[in-house]
Amino acid sequence: MKISELVEKLRTKNKKYISRAISLIENENSNSIELLKELSDLTGNAYRIGITGPPGAGKSTITNELIKLLLNQNKSVGIIAVDPTSPFTGGAVLGDRIRMNEIGIKPNVFIRSMATRGSLGGLSIKTIDAADILDAAGFDYIIFETVGVGQSELDIAKTADTTMVVLVPESGDSVQAMKAGLMEIADFFVMNKSDRPGAETAILSLQTTLMLRDHDENTYLPKIVKCIASEGKGITDLLEEIKLHHKFLVDSNQFEERRKKNTRIRIKEIVERNLAIDIWSKQRNNLLDNNSSSPYVTAEKIIEHYKKEILEVKNQ
Amino acid sequence: MKISELVEKLRTKNKKYISRAISLIENENSNSIELLKELSDLTGNAYRIGITGPPGAGKSTITNELIKLLLNQNKSVGIIAVDPTSPFTGGAVLGDRIRMNEIGIKPNVFIRSMATRGSLGGLSIKTIDAADILDAAGFDYIIFETVGVGQSELDIAKTADTTMVVLVPESGDSVQAMKAGLMEIADFFVMNKSDRPGAETAILSLQTTLMLRDHDENTYLPKIVKCIASEGKGITDLLEEIKLHHKFLVDSNQFEERRKKNTRIRIKEIVERNLAIDIWSKQRNNLLDNNSSSPYVTAEKIIEHYKKEILEVKNQ
Repeated sequence: MKISELVEKLRTKNKKYISRAISLIENENSNSIELLKELSDLTGNAYRIGITGPPGAGKSTITNELIKLLLNQNKSVGIIAVDPTSPFTGGAVLGDRIRMNEIGIKPNVFIRSMATRGSLGGLSIKTIDAADILDAAGFDYIIFETVGVGQSELDIAKTADTTMVVLVPESGDSVQAMKAGLMEIADFFVMNKSDRPGAETAILSLQTTLMLRDHDENTYLPKIVKCIASEGKGITDLLEEIKLHHKFLVDSNQFEERRKKNTRIRIKEIVERNLAIDIWSKQRNNLLDNNSSSPYVTAEKIIEHYKKEILEVKNQ
Repeated sequence: MKISELVEKLRTKNKKYISRAISLIENENSNSIELLKELSDLTGNAYRIGITGPPGAGKSTITNELIKLLLNQNKSVGIIAVDPTSPFTGGAVLGDRIRMNEIGIKPNVFIRSMATRGSLGGLSIKTIDAADILDAAGFDYIIFETVGVGQSELDIAKTADTTMVVLVPESGDSVQAMKAGLMEIADFFVMNKSDRPGAETAILSLQTTLMLRDHDENTYLPKIVKCIASEGKGITDLLEEIKLHHKFLVDSNQFEERRKKNTRIRIKEIVERNLAIDIWSKQRNNLLDNNSSSPYVTAEKIIEHYKKEILEVKNQ
């Protein structure tokens, strides 16, 4: 199938072709770049939501409830799950997975899990590429569900228009180290399981930390939305908060700016990954082992070798 | 001061000059590469230990106790802490910090914390560079203490000769997502606070997971060492396990192989970082914003621009 044909089919939200297109990207098929270039004029319409937080905070349940709410409002939703503990990606318990799958077969929903390990690498690039496919396919919303440990997972969540960080009252200690990272990317927080003991204390403590941060009139002060996702409680508030944040971005002229910044980061990653692929040819990989001297001397030799190769190719 | 002089001073384990040398690296001073090249013949003698695990598992307390034990055996120890929750780096409670500082002022101990955020980047490269300085200075052991969340922290711990992963009985849930990563890098596990309820269950569960992994006669099956670091219990066993693992590596001819592999990874990182610095000149950073077309088209233009520049420089 020609790429232009695939793009045509995509546009009808046909799940088979959406899957195929994402697989081209995931497997780094030689046609994938052509596909992405063709799509670029068709993207930018979907609203992108990042959902992240520590394992066990209930991100998938929230995602699931949010999908249901959006479907009720006649919206379509694409989900990219890069969370190894998510029922969407085969983690968690069987009952959860079945429940999630029921949502997945509805016509206005497309769920794709992306492998976090054992893949060819470039995970954050590929998740954004996959989002472009869903965007071009015409989904109104795209949700990135990522587990909030590890820089690359945070990087993915950060590329959304609105990013929420899901916590539970017990998260306190275990997020200590991730906190700084999670704080920086949160447009708002969700305190899930807010009926549990310690919820109010956890909210107060979070609020205190948030107040201590530098802010001016262009800063959106992250709110804390309470919910009990397993009972479907608070999900409307959560969607409301997404819309408020969107409105803030638009009103303060930060919406396009944020998207541009994300595109810059994306291009940088693409460039660096392509250079890395370029430089680690078999020949230069062999140079890695001739390291009788300092690693820094070997590194210089490898870069020199690479530059010489560019020169030879260009002068041909 | 000339670099050769600084190297001379370093070799006497003079803390002032060790600090100065590490600062050169941390700040990417123009002399730092020359320093590292000069050091390379003087390294390779220290035994490198990685200590990682989730926040709150007691990594710093274990490090502290291990230092004391090694000092009693007339060994010298250099510590590189890249753990924002560590008392060594200013995290945790004041009492802990004071206790840790008492160890730090002893003559055969050198403790250095490396910033995990807000630095110039290249953290994993710089920690290994810093270890080279401590190695050249003649420390018998070098300990990397890193928090086990995030790929870069795991990467640092992995570069050690022996890497231990510290857990507590309660770690179970919170390490679910990190588990795969932690499993892969652990040469052995430490179950700290092993007198707490749930310790035996946690050990059994960990053992079951470990047994399920592929292994052959060249695989070192990670043991689980119990300890109560706050009471100094189990630290001797832990050091014994480090030595057993070392012996295994040597006897199975994997010791030099492992170091070579780590050097390869290190060189790769240096090359990629230098290329990245090279490519993101102001001029090409500006190209990032002229992205009217697909990010992939812009990425290609930037790479093309870079290659052309190499050509021009070479042809001058």
